[in-house]
Amino acid sequence: MESFILTPSRRVRRTPFSDRVEQSGLKAYTVYNHMLLPTLFELTEADYHHLKRHVQVWDVGCERQVEVRGREATRLLQMLTPRDLRPMLPGRCYYTPMVDETGGMLNDPVTVKLAEDRYWVSIADSDLLLWIKGLAYGFRLEVDITEPDVWPLAVQGPRAETLMERVFGPAVREIRFFRFSRLPFNGQELVVARSGYSKQGGFEIYVDSAEVAEPLWDALMQQGRDLEVRAGCPNLIERIEGQLLSYGNDMTRENTPHECGLGRFCDTLTAIGCAGRDALLRVAVDGPIRQIRSLAIDGAPVPPCLDPWPVYAPGSTTRVGEVTSAAWSPDFDTNVAIGMVQLSHWTGGTQVEVETPDGGRMATVRSAAFI
Amino acid sequence: MESFILTPSRRVRRTPFSDRVEQSGLKAYTVYNHMLLPTLFELTEADYHHLKRHVQVWDVGCERQVEVRGREATRLLQMLTPRDLRPMLPGRCYYTPMVDETGGMLNDPVTVKLAEDRYWVSIADSDLLLWIKGLAYGFRLEVDITEPDVWPLAVQGPRAETLMERVFGPAVREIRFFRFSRLPFNGQELVVARSGYSKQGGFEIYVDSAEVAEPLWDALMQQGRDLEVRAGCPNLIERIEGQLLSYGNDMTRENTPHECGLGRFCDTLTAIGCAGRDALLRVAVDGPIRQIRSLAIDGAPVPPCLDPWPVYAPGSTTRVGEVTSAAWSPDFDTNVAIGMVQLSHWTGGTQVEVETPDGGRMATVRSAAFI
Repeated sequence: MESFILTPSRRVRRTPFSDRVEQSGLKAYTVYNHMLLPTLFELTEADYHHLKRHVQVWDVGCERQVEVRGREATRLLQMLTPRDLRPMLPGRCYYTPMVDETGGMLNDPVTVKLAEDRYWVSIADSDLLLWIKGLAYGFRLEVDITEPDVWPLAVQGPRAETLMERVFGPAVREIRFFRFSRLPFNGQELVVARSGYSKQGGFEIYVDSAEVAEPLWDALMQQGRDLEVRAGCPNLIERIEGQLLSYGNDMTRENTPHECGLGRFCDTLTAIGCAGRDALLRVAVDGPIRQIRSLAIDGAPVPPCLDPWPVYAPGSTTRVGEVTSAAWSPDFDTNVAIGMVQLSHWTGGTQVEVETPDGGRMATVRSAAFI
Repeated sequence: MESFILTPSRRVRRTPFSDRVEQSGLKAYTVYNHMLLPTLFELTEADYHHLKRHVQVWDVGCERQVEVRGREATRLLQMLTPRDLRPMLPGRCYYTPMVDETGGMLNDPVTVKLAEDRYWVSIADSDLLLWIKGLAYGFRLEVDITEPDVWPLAVQGPRAETLMERVFGPAVREIRFFRFSRLPFNGQELVVARSGYSKQGGFEIYVDSAEVAEPLWDALMQQGRDLEVRAGCPNLIERIEGQLLSYGNDMTRENTPHECGLGRFCDTLTAIGCAGRDALLRVAVDGPIRQIRSLAIDGAPVPPCLDPWPVYAPGSTTRVGEVTSAAWSPDFDTNVAIGMVQLSHWTGGTQVEVETPDGGRMATVRSAAFI
């Protein structure tokens, strides 16, 4: 497949880390929330091996924050998601499927509760701000909704904790998964959460001042030299292995959270006030008729998945699903994939046929991610 | 400046024209509405000269449509824009600034009125669908809001009418500016409007069936061979000369339509029901304190404008505006630019100083576009 240049413009916003990223051997970008997201430094496979062994610093400044604050902030947040937010305390991060009034996925952000009346919604690639503002206006809610300049920087990989402790001190080790602390750096307090878009462990630092960005990047690189730290980015192979979903790739507004395997983050019966609750009540009880699954696709490395690949019952023309992300995995020595598979074929071990641009391939539906 | 590859993925959607575009010598893309938008074929200057002399076919499939239909469709549309929609008849296209409850620009689409109760909103680069859905849900409006698969194809340039007549027949000549007709092609009826994102004249064809896409592309290329037709795309130089604004580049949610020079499309006093009306009433009467202007920047060709360039009063540190788009114009033999300039300096002929990445440059504010 041919490669094309990405034309730079103001509309495709840079982050305060972009200069450092480009000085670190960047080769490719994508655009995410109208912003640059690095996608490749060395080779996808080399980036992958490095991520699984060492530690990487990721410019995920494109994870824009929608800040909701005010007396009715919690009420508004509960309108957005079928996850019950009543147990959520300040200091917690919740993975929150967000749905429209039909139960269709609008985004799958991590919501950060900064205070009883103040949240950051750390969004995937859709202008969720507009939906939130629309609801707030329609329901005349006493809230203020903004897009503050906060640029998350992720530190991911098995050596992430060691590196983070050197830069932020031993308090880093006390942060539990999906919790955050405010830790000092260069005289500023930064929100540091144990989270991130990999299965290798790590942290996300919510950098809310452009002045801190390069000093923080440089400190991580200098302190991590012996840990073989380098610039990195979300890795296609690693995220597919771990079944980390990508909004716009593996799910769209067409899908309910239950179809996306996110039923465990939905408390539809008790999430009273959620705009999509009526639409989701039946699927919450009966379950969905198709669901996200990991698949292993036989044969040589597949090309990139740019349009959904149809999935058929073997030797038949009955369509039973589609593959939406796929890549060759060196560690599992097979093509790993994520797709939506119908109830009739979603049991682990079921054989299906995937129509790739290179022709039909046999594939096996898995009961779990590649771990 | 270095160039980086755009990583392909399903999330960055292809259009039914993408294969043809890539076969036509495409060199670069941008991402617009989560979709590929071609940006370069030969060289920006060569593409520019060709556009101004001949005719080009543009894949603007990324101009997604938000379809609003139902009994309260017109009421909802009027909530979105300060333009008075009461005179709008079916068959008309209106350029419609769309604002939030603070009067901030959310998008600047062309709205197409298909029928009394059915509209297509042909959007610029923001998920306006989410705002529209939020309002409809909040106000319990009897409307259906969808994103139909409609991929506009633009035919632009001084020879556009000649080419379009060959493909769609003489009825093309009857279409007035910002009107549309339904014209047959390959047994289907397509909405054909006299509109487009250039000042060279032309049409936009709202292709609502993927099957028609390549036959239509091929017909335009074959019928236009002696007209020197070729694949093209919105051209940075030409659009700056003509002061065609780009949402996300020249304006954001920070700006009112009046600041964007779009006051002539606002009827704030009579646009009763517009969500931003209260916020805009004062500015509609008093006028804005800064406004979009064309500027001519002295000296050698400037680099691309990736972040707003500050504009100062000459020899002073008083900031009086910013430049958001700039390019070298061969026809005007100067750097042409678009920026926001304060009231004190926006009179045509005023000298200002622009801080470019290459250093300060003298520039002249113009009273009109480069035409």
